[in-house]
Amino acid sequence: VVFDTDDEDLKPGMTILLKDGDRPIATVKFTEKFAPNKPLECLKCYGTSQIEHPGSLMVATERGRYYMGGEVTGLNLPIREFPCRTPKEVRDSLPDDKDVVAFQCRNPVHRAHYELFTRALDDENVGEGGVVLVHPTCGPTQADDIPGNVRYKTYEVLKEETADPRVKWDYLPYSMHMAGPREAIQHMIIRKNFGCTHFIIGRDMAGSKSSITGDDFYGAYDAQDTAKANAEKLGVTPVPSLNLVYCEEEGYVTADFAEEKGLSIKKLSGTKFRQMLRGGEDIPEWFAFKSVVKVLRENA
Amino acid sequence: VVFDTDDEDLKPGMTILLKDGDRPIATVKFTEKFAPNKPLECLKCYGTSQIEHPGSLMVATERGRYYMGGEVTGLNLPIREFPCRTPKEVRDSLPDDKDVVAFQCRNPVHRAHYELFTRALDDENVGEGGVVLVHPTCGPTQADDIPGNVRYKTYEVLKEETADPRVKWDYLPYSMHMAGPREAIQHMIIRKNFGCTHFIIGRDMAGSKSSITGDDFYGAYDAQDTAKANAEKLGVTPVPSLNLVYCEEEGYVTADFAEEKGLSIKKLSGTKFRQMLRGGEDIPEWFAFKSVVKVLRENA
Repeated sequence: VVFDTDDEDLKPGMTILLKDGDRPIATVKFTEKFAPNKPLECLKCYGTSQIEHPGSLMVATERGRYYMGGEVTGLNLPIREFPCRTPKEVRDSLPDDKDVVAFQCRNPVHRAHYELFTRALDDENVGEGGVVLVHPTCGPTQADDIPGNVRYKTYEVLKEETADPRVKWDYLPYSMHMAGPREAIQHMIIRKNFGCTHFIIGRDMAGSKSSITGDDFYGAYDAQDTAKANAEKLGVTPVPSLNLVYCEEEGYVTADFAEEKGLSIKKLSGTKFRQMLRGGEDIPEWFAFKSVVKVLRENA
Repeated sequence: VVFDTDDEDLKPGMTILLKDGDRPIATVKFTEKFAPNKPLECLKCYGTSQIEHPGSLMVATERGRYYMGGEVTGLNLPIREFPCRTPKEVRDSLPDDKDVVAFQCRNPVHRAHYELFTRALDDENVGEGGVVLVHPTCGPTQADDIPGNVRYKTYEVLKEETADPRVKWDYLPYSMHMAGPREAIQHMIIRKNFGCTHFIIGRDMAGSKSSITGDDFYGAYDAQDTAKANAEKLGVTPVPSLNLVYCEEEGYVTADFAEEKGLSIKKLSGTKFRQMLRGGEDIPEWFAFKSVVKVLRENA
């Protein structure tokens, strides 16, 4: 978290009060103020200083010209649309002698996701009796993401519908940077703090494309590779996402298995799904949970 | 020139007064306001949206979030440290039946520059009886450039010292973008408007390097090549800079000639020159004009 400002009057030695509306959240006693080297910051964080990258664009055009640091003293937790428990509260709610596999998401959970994170418990790296922590980020989203308050409702109804004791749900106040491999590392550090031992990483995790050319900034497996290379140092084990597909004959299976057995795969694109959602068409239950579809329709 | 603002209250239909201090310069009757696509702008202008480029950094971090356009009505010319004549005034002062070769610069003129632009008159593309227009830019400079008011004095004393009827001097209110080949084109268009038929282009004209890695954004001859490719369309002929060196035996000659003849080349780097200037050492007259050195010393 960066405290940035254009204010020439804020100076080290001053103490300010951070508020959320009228609610006092924290004081900051400033100890330093500097003009950041934004090109260097973007290169180190995002691997590029091109403002075609949403992170570099944010640093360059939305953040002020000064960064300030200091001593932060918490006063009250903010009141959020998603109730976000503290790391300690989440840690205390998790089994402390079992593996905890974190699943990061920023979209509603559909069948394929659900299969993916429950099957992650069978991964060779995850111990007997492990649990999943579904831990959606709920900070400001990308322009085309579903609004946070609607996503929150989809998660809550799904938690109730599935009622699986191996699946825990909590929310993370965090806004994606789309920083690819470096963001995977950041997510692993954050989830470690929330008591997780494992972290599911998919293809293109936190990936982004040039806003102009559409070219990818990172390779599809960069996040997985970087996570593996740093797993020991971080004390968090990455679990690669299974590439699951749905077929008539056997339900969700891996793409490799389906190809080997010549199974008939069913596909439904995100675009087609949104069209059907808007058009009031029946959404096949192999694709989405009824409870989730209902929430999305009621809040369209 | 871009009118940029963060002001939410400025709207199309409004007319504003632009002032320089208390002096009214122009009115602008706004007809449009929009949020620019800065990544696209940077790519098109600078060939990169990396904010390691000084132009992209300026667009991203110094310009406001809106651009506005409208009808501009001039009231008074600004009063400048460098008196900048209008394009019409400059055109009227130049011979209209001879070639006019523009020399762009943003540093004091030393011997090598002087030789370079006077010998440009002998270029095969320049007609008999041509003149040079020395046309330094005098807008805000890079951090390590010599301040405008000092440069202005060096040009004025040199004009007097050399008093060459083939050399005309004028000043251009313009700040470099370091946009390489695209900036060469812009300079040619501007100089055409000031009555020039030819434009001298050196190696690395308007070139720039990454502020972090030091890598060049453009090839050494990109500006010359782009200028040649567009010369006919622009109606301005580029004149490549001669690569001149100084030797004891014959004074300024081309580097190729010096090598062929095995002449003993003398060199003095810009860094060494500035050291000698600060140290009060004698500057060799083959390198710099006495009048220019005197001004630089008096204004150090």
